[in-house]
Amino acid sequence: IMWRALTHAAMNGVPQRGKLLTLDNMNPKVKRVEYAVRGPIVQRAVQIEKELREGVKKPFTEVIKANIGDAHAMGQKPITFLRQVLALCSYPELLKDNQFPEDAKKRAQRILEACGGHSIGAYSASQGIECIRHDVAHFIEKRDGGIPSNPDNIYLSTGASDAIVTILKLLVSGEGRDRTGVMISIPQYPLYSAALAELDAVQISYYLDEDKCWSLDVKELRRALYAARQHCNPRVLCIINPGNPTGQVQSRQCIEDVIRFAKEENLFLMADEVYQDNVYAEGCQFHSFKKVLFEMGPEYSSKVEMASFHSTSKCYMGECGFRGGYMEVINMDPEVKAQLTKLVSVRLCPPVPGQALLDLVVNPPQPDEPSYATFMKERTAVLAALAEKAKLTEQIFNTVPGITCNPVQGAMYTFPRISLPQKAIDKAKEEGQVPDMFYCMKLLEEEGICLVPGSGFGQREGTFHFRMTILPPTEKLKLVLKKIKDFHLRFTKEFS
Amino acid sequence: IMWRALTHAAMNGVPQRGKLLTLDNMNPKVKRVEYAVRGPIVQRAVQIEKELREGVKKPFTEVIKANIGDAHAMGQKPITFLRQVLALCSYPELLKDNQFPEDAKKRAQRILEACGGHSIGAYSASQGIECIRHDVAHFIEKRDGGIPSNPDNIYLSTGASDAIVTILKLLVSGEGRDRTGVMISIPQYPLYSAALAELDAVQISYYLDEDKCWSLDVKELRRALYAARQHCNPRVLCIINPGNPTGQVQSRQCIEDVIRFAKEENLFLMADEVYQDNVYAEGCQFHSFKKVLFEMGPEYSSKVEMASFHSTSKCYMGECGFRGGYMEVINMDPEVKAQLTKLVSVRLCPPVPGQALLDLVVNPPQPDEPSYATFMKERTAVLAALAEKAKLTEQIFNTVPGITCNPVQGAMYTFPRISLPQKAIDKAKEEGQVPDMFYCMKLLEEEGICLVPGSGFGQREGTFHFRMTILPPTEKLKLVLKKIKDFHLRFTKEFS
Repeated sequence: IMWRALTHAAMNGVPQRGKLLTLDNMNPKVKRVEYAVRGPIVQRAVQIEKELREGVKKPFTEVIKANIGDAHAMGQKPITFLRQVLALCSYPELLKDNQFPEDAKKRAQRILEACGGHSIGAYSASQGIECIRHDVAHFIEKRDGGIPSNPDNIYLSTGASDAIVTILKLLVSGEGRDRTGVMISIPQYPLYSAALAELDAVQISYYLDEDKCWSLDVKELRRALYAARQHCNPRVLCIINPGNPTGQVQSRQCIEDVIRFAKEENLFLMADEVYQDNVYAEGCQFHSFKKVLFEMGPEYSSKVEMASFHSTSKCYMGECGFRGGYMEVINMDPEVKAQLTKLVSVRLCPPVPGQALLDLVVNPPQPDEPSYATFMKERTAVLAALAEKAKLTEQIFNTVPGITCNPVQGAMYTFPRISLPQKAIDKAKEEGQVPDMFYCMKLLEEEGICLVPGSGFGQREGTFHFRMTILPPTEKLKLVLKKIKDFHLRFTKEFS
Repeated sequence: IMWRALTHAAMNGVPQRGKLLTLDNMNPKVKRVEYAVRGPIVQRAVQIEKELREGVKKPFTEVIKANIGDAHAMGQKPITFLRQVLALCSYPELLKDNQFPEDAKKRAQRILEACGGHSIGAYSASQGIECIRHDVAHFIEKRDGGIPSNPDNIYLSTGASDAIVTILKLLVSGEGRDRTGVMISIPQYPLYSAALAELDAVQISYYLDEDKCWSLDVKELRRALYAARQHCNPRVLCIINPGNPTGQVQSRQCIEDVIRFAKEENLFLMADEVYQDNVYAEGCQFHSFKKVLFEMGPEYSSKVEMASFHSTSKCYMGECGFRGGYMEVINMDPEVKAQLTKLVSVRLCPPVPGQALLDLVVNPPQPDEPSYATFMKERTAVLAALAEKAKLTEQIFNTVPGITCNPVQGAMYTFPRISLPQKAIDKAKEEGQVPDMFYCMKLLEEEGICLVPGSGFGQREGTFHFRMTILPPTEKLKLVLKKIKDFHLRFTKEFS
């Protein structure tokens, strides 16, 4: 057909003169956005996978993508109860089917009754389905030993990322020296830096202490804050606990210190607690910011403004594809809350299947219900395997000369420090790459393992790291660790 | 427990002095956002529903929410095939079950094989699952009589809203007189004005011609554009076809004129075509902008930059809750496309159940497959009922003195014009309300019918309208129309 030929250039994306929308005239804020977790190294990994399928010979037969916390992609099986209820919600004809346990049917019926026209295909309220927000509030109350949670303060979201960006949107204002400053940890999860770039807010970096297991020191918060006050208006403090990419679990004392600091310095607190069920190390325990805040007494609990975030993508369920999550806002001005409700209404509602899934996560099978035993068995198995893999990773990395690794106390990642020979650093510079990207790219090409360079998360000048998820099945994880070990030794030798 | 009392004020959202984040210091762009489709009138409707449940006596027993195109909430049943496949994808154990037709199983298996770890709980590629993007491209090629579509140009999204805002984000830049101007129709779907407020772009309003069935005249586009060039940098032209809220279907000639105009004036085209399967009026037909563009020859098809949007929320399926959608970008600079890919990667991926659903919509059962007959029967029934209701609505409204209504050629809404007596206008002003909001609020309080005032979409100064969806089942729709008729006559009398 004629235009097949004529439009060949256009269809294949060959650069053309005179485009209206170009790199030069597009939104400069979008250009500044970076997101290493799915950056160039992952694009190359996808390319290599394609080459493998096409029969190109490589020193490996598969690419192992340890760049992202994607449990199911790494072979983790979905939790039966969750998926049974989702199937029932999708196709309610199955409610007549004997193969489904009664408690799964009861949950599905309850969710469907809360949906418009009893269908998960209807829009929900923009803040989320009311009965699910109630269940979330009960979950929080139970988690926090009875501290009350108001369903009006719960907003369901499209994964935690969506909620985090939404709260940042409310907080960003000002020009020049009045621009909102947002404190984020270094290393950080790059959603934060990406959102700040897009919203044109000022990133205020505070460093975690690698020598003390990536712990947070209020002195460092203060240093970063006071320096930032010279050039912007710091209004927000973001904390990720358990830490991503660094895997530390904050102590109760440290959380108290942070809350006291936030109150003294008039900072809005954002507590990213999506890994709250992923705590492995002995002596470590998850403490929610909400609980600690309320235990500090009314001069804190009635005063400190805060949002806390959770997700269906992590923990034992790992249901990333459903994009479910919630946030709880605390002490937010009712007028601002009305603005928040208005803002989320523009996107109509979070995905309803994700909301349904969240409902099951916050309200899992109870001991007297038929699905309880299987559910607990599956849940425990996932968390036990993760705990084992956390330990294994730390142990093996620490046997490698030139790799040092803090314990993976929680979350799903290790962020070991790597020594790179000067010659490798020079070679990387020559090729216009940051040294740890050079290292990770070489690892990918030679071993088929995809990691994210530490520079994608931020690190102290002159130090190098990578982030690796501990999610691969134990045997595969052992293989990955061995391959990285061999590569690191070879790399060190090559550039010495 | 002690803090139950102590934190009572905080938990119940009572305003407090000294908040960090207030209406005065929050993001002013967010404050400017308005979204009438879920605005104050809908909040009041939800309140009234609660009052009814609590036994408060009203002149009606249920609130009919005709404010939004939410098919399932209005009683439309999901399409069996779609939900069967979704259930199979959610709980693959069901693949062993004889009650599911083979073609549904085949689709589910194909989708699962394209997912990480064969689970819809894994993240997908940020642009969307590759085989689904291929299916979308085939669907577009078939729809457009063979004009090629490149899967690399397809981006799956969280509903069409998400994709529309993403493209606007790329296009927005500049300060003062260089700020990006975006042309949108009046009346418009308020997602557009909301996104422009949030992105701080300039809204350029062009008026549809109510006297000519809400048609679009290039002369009016030119007027609006030239006026806007005095104070901003117009770069984008948005078209909604079939129209929301106005229900018109654009003629092929008009689309050609618009494309020619966009080319001459160097405008990026955004074609919101989410209602492409919702065309009812005789003599009307949906023409995609892409098809017309390519039929206009290479000087257009290789030159005009464009994005077109589609959704799983409308048409015959009405699966709003799944938040599925896609866009096709045409002639986009490859460097800009790389930026687009980077930008969407920050949110990881669109909800995978919505992607799966979209795959079924673009690749429905074929004549030789077991689900074909039922699928076609269900699809045809939905579209035939909508066509009937479109006609019914127009006919009944046009019998009411003081209501005039254009034919509902397509989409899911009627946007009739209402005459309001001067006394009603004065009374509204007295109460600080815009007159059509006053009218709609009164209708809600007296009849339990929730509509959206025309002012939420924009209308010519001095004219008044409302938007009503035609989705209620025929008998209920007749009741709604009768109630509105009675109310309108009563209202007119009361204020005459």
